[in-house]
Amino acid sequence: MLPDVLKGDFRAIARLITAVENESAQADAWLRELFPHTGHAFTLGVTGAPGSGKSTLVDRLTAEYRRRGDKVAVIAVDPSSPFSGGAILGDRIRMQSHSLDPGTFIRSMATRGNLGGLARTTADVVTVLDAAGFDLVIIETVGVGQDEVDVARTAEATLVLLVPGMGDDIQAMKAGIMEIADVFVINKSDHPGADRVEVELSALLTLSNRADGWKPAVVRTVATTGEGVAACIDAVEAFRKFQESSPARQARRIQVQKERLLELVRSRVARQLLGRPQGAELLERLAERVAARELDPYTAADELLALGRDGPGE
Amino acid sequence: MLPDVLKGDFRAIARLITAVENESAQADAWLRELFPHTGHAFTLGVTGAPGSGKSTLVDRLTAEYRRRGDKVAVIAVDPSSPFSGGAILGDRIRMQSHSLDPGTFIRSMATRGNLGGLARTTADVVTVLDAAGFDLVIIETVGVGQDEVDVARTAEATLVLLVPGMGDDIQAMKAGIMEIADVFVINKSDHPGADRVEVELSALLTLSNRADGWKPAVVRTVATTGEGVAACIDAVEAFRKFQESSPARQARRIQVQKERLLELVRSRVARQLLGRPQGAELLERLAERVAARELDPYTAADELLALGRDGPGE
Repeated sequence: MLPDVLKGDFRAIARLITAVENESAQADAWLRELFPHTGHAFTLGVTGAPGSGKSTLVDRLTAEYRRRGDKVAVIAVDPSSPFSGGAILGDRIRMQSHSLDPGTFIRSMATRGNLGGLARTTADVVTVLDAAGFDLVIIETVGVGQDEVDVARTAEATLVLLVPGMGDDIQAMKAGIMEIADVFVINKSDHPGADRVEVELSALLTLSNRADGWKPAVVRTVATTGEGVAACIDAVEAFRKFQESSPARQARRIQVQKERLLELVRSRVARQLLGRPQGAELLERLAERVAARELDPYTAADELLALGRDGPGE
Repeated sequence: MLPDVLKGDFRAIARLITAVENESAQADAWLRELFPHTGHAFTLGVTGAPGSGKSTLVDRLTAEYRRRGDKVAVIAVDPSSPFSGGAILGDRIRMQSHSLDPGTFIRSMATRGNLGGLARTTADVVTVLDAAGFDLVIIETVGVGQDEVDVARTAEATLVLLVPGMGDDIQAMKAGIMEIADVFVINKSDHPGADRVEVELSALLTLSNRADGWKPAVVRTVATTGEGVAACIDAVEAFRKFQESSPARQARRIQVQKERLLELVRSRVARQLLGRPQGAELLERLAERVAARELDPYTAADELLALGRDGPGE
């Protein structure tokens, strides 16, 4: 399978991603082999509230990057929640318009695995797509949950979508937004209220004080018509260029890898534990005792950890 | 501090919760001591999209349960996301109306800790509140992210809020919604479209096939006026009664504890690793090497795990 993945074969890529999502032990070995072939792809996070037009914008960005000659992969992280909004099904169907294009790969991730966070799974899927030769990997998330924000944070550049009518809310979202947005996109900018969002956002940005010194760009788009999409890409590329010469970039990369390693350690410990017959059995027995209140969960967790420490794992 | 927590002293409770959120090693010992004093509180999850009126409903439910004589604690899980909506600040301020009432404790959790999931932290905070003598702990989440859905799932009963105008989306949210809702609340039911939501929801519920045999109730409310709030509580109480006689309840409890134990194991491993001088140093060095692409993250994670296996930990 790996040679086919490296050649960019879509079927092989899809199968490997499924193995990664299922957290098979074999997937680890494959990811390890692929890693030396990575480092080429640029990762772009796109995040925004439900209804902000994320998927339409991602669709447009994909088309424009394709026109410029890039191979593009899209990972659409749809939370498995009841509230992800009605647009997803329709949008995913629309994205199929790219599905006959051998330079565009689209994958929805409905949920994280049982044993680890969404950020870890997404990072592993990026490893696969990077090795498969994609120039750009777009990670689309609904930026409403903590998990999804974590995912956006792992991308090298992040677009945050706003829409008119959010004016009142901008003050409330200061903290989180400043931290993750490299480029702000005011989508649906033909709707009334676009000017107001821009004014409030600009006021907020004068307070921006990022460690790397970047001043987030603000771009207006109408994703449904494609207006502003080229300007949006220009802003991303400007940030990319800025980053290349920024000493803060290295620090950010190391931080991202630290979080990734911790997440890998966490999910492996759980997998190794469940991978042994005594592990799964002990977990079941301890959970029963905790549910019956015969044992507190903190002591039970220590017992599980002690088992994990005894042996070599898988 | 613990005797004061057991007496229900608000300051002591708040301080202990802060220690739990900060994941101090000391907090574990305290939680262990508190555990034998738990088992009394009932946990109610309330979840819904931003703008569905969750906080207003929680406010009304709190007032009504108080009127019935229960001591109530509210854990409001606000994702630290930019998109949590503008209502949170205002609502939290409004909830302060209860803040002079010694029978109502309100705590916002802005974010999960660095080392573990929101579900684990929330479960630990419930342990504190349960030991402190609250009869009801309401866990309010914005049900949009995976993490937040996980939190809702740990409650003994879960209310899911819908609002008119979501009609089109109900089909799309089948899977997730069926799984977590014990009671559906159609809030803002004085708005046009309430009938349609109810009809579509009822149609969907005929397909419901829960393991425990419960048929989720549907209640209409106008949280701003308090209409339907008593009926909402009646529905929760009916489910509670149903549960008590249900053989599936025990299986669900054990499952919740299994997930909790795994999550505890995961966060402890990370904490023990970082708690040792060599651990934090090794993580830093490995992250640098992975960022420089000299080493793959999977091998790096194995090195970290090997260190964790060597010693007795904290």
